[in-house]
Amino acid sequence: MANSIYENYPPQLTPEQQEFLVTATKDWAIQNGLAVRPSPAILPESANPNHVFATNAPVTLFPSPFPRACFKEAEALQTVYNQLYAAITCNEEWLGKVIEDLIDVDDFVANLWKTHLAVKKEGYVQNLSLGLYRSDYMADVTPNQPPSLKQVEFNTISSSFGGLSSLVKSLHTELLTSPPSYPPHPLLQSGTPPDNTAVETLSGGLATAHKAYGPSKSSPELPLCVLFIVQDEERNVFDQLALLRRLTGFHKIPTFRVKSSQILNETSIPTSDSSRPLIYRPPHSPSSAFEVTTVYLRAYYSPDEYKSSRDWEARTHLERSAAIKCPTVLNQLSGCKKIQQVLAEPTGPDHLTSFLNGVDSSIIARLRETFAPQYDLSTNGQGRDLALNAETAMKHVLKPQREGGGNNIYKADIPEYLRRIPESDWKGWVLMELINPAENAENVALRNDGEVLRGNVISELGIYGTILWEDTGKILHNDQGGWLLRTKGKEVNEGGVAAGFSSLDSVLLY
Amino acid sequence: MANSIYENYPPQLTPEQQEFLVTATKDWAIQNGLAVRPSPAILPESANPNHVFATNAPVTLFPSPFPRACFKEAEALQTVYNQLYAAITCNEEWLGKVIEDLIDVDDFVANLWKTHLAVKKEGYVQNLSLGLYRSDYMADVTPNQPPSLKQVEFNTISSSFGGLSSLVKSLHTELLTSPPSYPPHPLLQSGTPPDNTAVETLSGGLATAHKAYGPSKSSPELPLCVLFIVQDEERNVFDQLALLRRLTGFHKIPTFRVKSSQILNETSIPTSDSSRPLIYRPPHSPSSAFEVTTVYLRAYYSPDEYKSSRDWEARTHLERSAAIKCPTVLNQLSGCKKIQQVLAEPTGPDHLTSFLNGVDSSIIARLRETFAPQYDLSTNGQGRDLALNAETAMKHVLKPQREGGGNNIYKADIPEYLRRIPESDWKGWVLMELINPAENAENVALRNDGEVLRGNVISELGIYGTILWEDTGKILHNDQGGWLLRTKGKEVNEGGVAAGFSSLDSVLLY
Repeated sequence: MANSIYENYPPQLTPEQQEFLVTATKDWAIQNGLAVRPSPAILPESANPNHVFATNAPVTLFPSPFPRACFKEAEALQTVYNQLYAAITCNEEWLGKVIEDLIDVDDFVANLWKTHLAVKKEGYVQNLSLGLYRSDYMADVTPNQPPSLKQVEFNTISSSFGGLSSLVKSLHTELLTSPPSYPPHPLLQSGTPPDNTAVETLSGGLATAHKAYGPSKSSPELPLCVLFIVQDEERNVFDQLALLRRLTGFHKIPTFRVKSSQILNETSIPTSDSSRPLIYRPPHSPSSAFEVTTVYLRAYYSPDEYKSSRDWEARTHLERSAAIKCPTVLNQLSGCKKIQQVLAEPTGPDHLTSFLNGVDSSIIARLRETFAPQYDLSTNGQGRDLALNAETAMKHVLKPQREGGGNNIYKADIPEYLRRIPESDWKGWVLMELINPAENAENVALRNDGEVLRGNVISELGIYGTILWEDTGKILHNDQGGWLLRTKGKEVNEGGVAAGFSSLDSVLLY
Repeated sequence: MANSIYENYPPQLTPEQQEFLVTATKDWAIQNGLAVRPSPAILPESANPNHVFATNAPVTLFPSPFPRACFKEAEALQTVYNQLYAAITCNEEWLGKVIEDLIDVDDFVANLWKTHLAVKKEGYVQNLSLGLYRSDYMADVTPNQPPSLKQVEFNTISSSFGGLSSLVKSLHTELLTSPPSYPPHPLLQSGTPPDNTAVETLSGGLATAHKAYGPSKSSPELPLCVLFIVQDEERNVFDQLALLRRLTGFHKIPTFRVKSSQILNETSIPTSDSSRPLIYRPPHSPSSAFEVTTVYLRAYYSPDEYKSSRDWEARTHLERSAAIKCPTVLNQLSGCKKIQQVLAEPTGPDHLTSFLNGVDSSIIARLRETFAPQYDLSTNGQGRDLALNAETAMKHVLKPQREGGGNNIYKADIPEYLRRIPESDWKGWVLMELINPAENAENVALRNDGEVLRGNVISELGIYGTILWEDTGKILHNDQGGWLLRTKGKEVNEGGVAAGFSSLDSVLLY
């Protein structure tokens, strides 16, 4: 029984043990940059007028057990998943057909598609694309069956927490290897979490793109740089800075952060230059001009970030430039839930095999194994029946096209929700069968306001990958490495670690 | 003219330049643990009930110029200073005579001395002493003279900021080597601050003592550890944790922090064991017992920390144990200002030469050169005249026996202060000639509440050293390495970086 591993874990804590672990974790987090800026909800603006304070990222006090076979399988499949999403992005016709269905029900998807069409009309000047991905899974531990790996979603834009996740691995490792930090428990003596090379992998992808960009296209030539496009009010800044530090310190690449609202102020494309280099002038040193090789989006992934036409103008401006985009608009669109659902369709054309040309069929079969059953709601059929039936709805989640969580409809809420919206909008949603997590998994979370919560939890594993390819489909770099474990209280349905209702965690493989 | 280096430095900042440097510094500080816990004055307890928030340590945005010759001289003399204070501590008779004068005017000194006598009566069981010192200096840059190095004080207990100071060096180095972080200025292109090995040096001292302690004296033998004794409400915790991380991570020595109020709860000396090992039982794991090789005091240096007889009992308990003390009570007493003044007396016995037996007389002369003129007020004579005369008082500072700043009387306040206290108490004070800092030195400070201040500053250089010796005078380890630059606004008379009125800085040697 796979679930027996979760029994009596983590060990109960005396007040002194909890006090020790909480203090050690709080201090370690600040000493090592496992930190976030506090939201106004936990520290009012009036108490923090200069935005000077930081707090620990929400973390579990203990690592969580995770089936070794599932972890290894997720690692093994990551470069295949990278290749799949690169291939989808290269097939504009196929992608367009899937997207077409969403255009009249999803403004955001429609605007992204329009952005692509506008740049296509003018002509793209950069034939390289960069993906920094995270494939998210749960271990399905249905009793009396071996645990199996099921994909929750595949993130093609702004895949976050690589920086902080590596730190959680170090925190838990330090506690595990400094007895008597933890109370005695067999699982806590069984080893340490596996290496977490998320920072190296993700930065390595950016560095590879930077190099592949080639020499400056400006005349006279300009020094080259990488830009991180970030949200104006980003609180998860230390996650991004972990990658930035690696890029500047190890790869020696000048790297700057630009707020999305400042893109049109701080970058420009010379109208006279048909190669359309993206020029960045730091506001603190306007006489220094850099040519941007790679634009890494840690913003513009969600509709609420496009507040006006100026945001769409800025996104288009980046897209039409010669900088390598991470991701392009098309690559972002390939992350729609609808794509995942179409790929998972058990009948009809074998999309996987056509996209993964040259990949062994046994590997493709293993990848297909990671798909949870999921259904289209655009037409009458099994999906609609499962969603509208109160009993079967309980085993499902309804997902829009967004990434990043916070928009899903769960279980009993599904039939009511669907009946409330126009039937013509149903095709904007995908119904996915819920994965069965370990029922008795527990952990103790230290929130970023310092509150400590113990309870039943659900964990989601993310594996990071990075790929650089030409629009011809030729792959120049395909790598995987590093992981994230996100653990949330069972009463909470959604992810969103930075918002404080779920925690960064690490894995103890069993 | 030495002072010309300070002209037009640091460069003026546009709002965008200041915004960039402030944001970069704030973020770097949290990412790298250059942090402090906020005081209730900058973040009320009500907004921080779980004590979860941290902020940047107060730092300058720019490194400060410092005369290279003075810096090198301070480094060159540190091991001689280490030796001097070890030798003073070994000469209980000489030390006792100097202290005797203070006993009836200074309760704190009297109680320390009583503690020593009580343990002496029972008999010390540890013949090794460890010093982790910081010698503080200013560069005297009197116009038309070469800059000279003058000692402000010699700290024999709780010498702080080694951990954070190393980080400030890294912060400024990163800004200097990542153009265009700073506006152009010749000094900012002249190089980077020298290496700062404070963490390695101080932890190395503790590790050497740990090893020299030898095997466990308990039967059965216990695992060995180092204890940091810390204040109950310590806000400068990340400075201490930098040393602790090095001890546990690099030296692989179990190291724990114990609040001074918990010493008697968490440590014990078995009454049956005449070798008096100090046993530590972590409250989070009371079944694990460790034998303490080395007690590192980051508390109990100031009278206000001894709130009741229980604190003196705890201090005595540590002192009589077999653990190596850093420092012993006698070594703490050797740091009294009175000792510094007696050593500096231009007439009478040549104490330096007797203590520095075997040291070249030219070295002793160089060490003597670092003494500022200072005077005893216990008897009629030059000191009293200089202190009571309104005009000459302006060139002096009046210091009590404490370390750590916050208690000095400056310039015009001196005559009035002395007239207000009984003349019999005057012998508790030392009058020291003020050192002439660069008049036009400026810098920009980022306080830990996020406020930014620009103005004239005074900088103090500290050099760290560590020494381990036997009570016979035999030296087992004598090392120096690492530095601190503390820079304060000129209108502020005192140090005390953690309280926020002065900043951690780094040096650009010229």
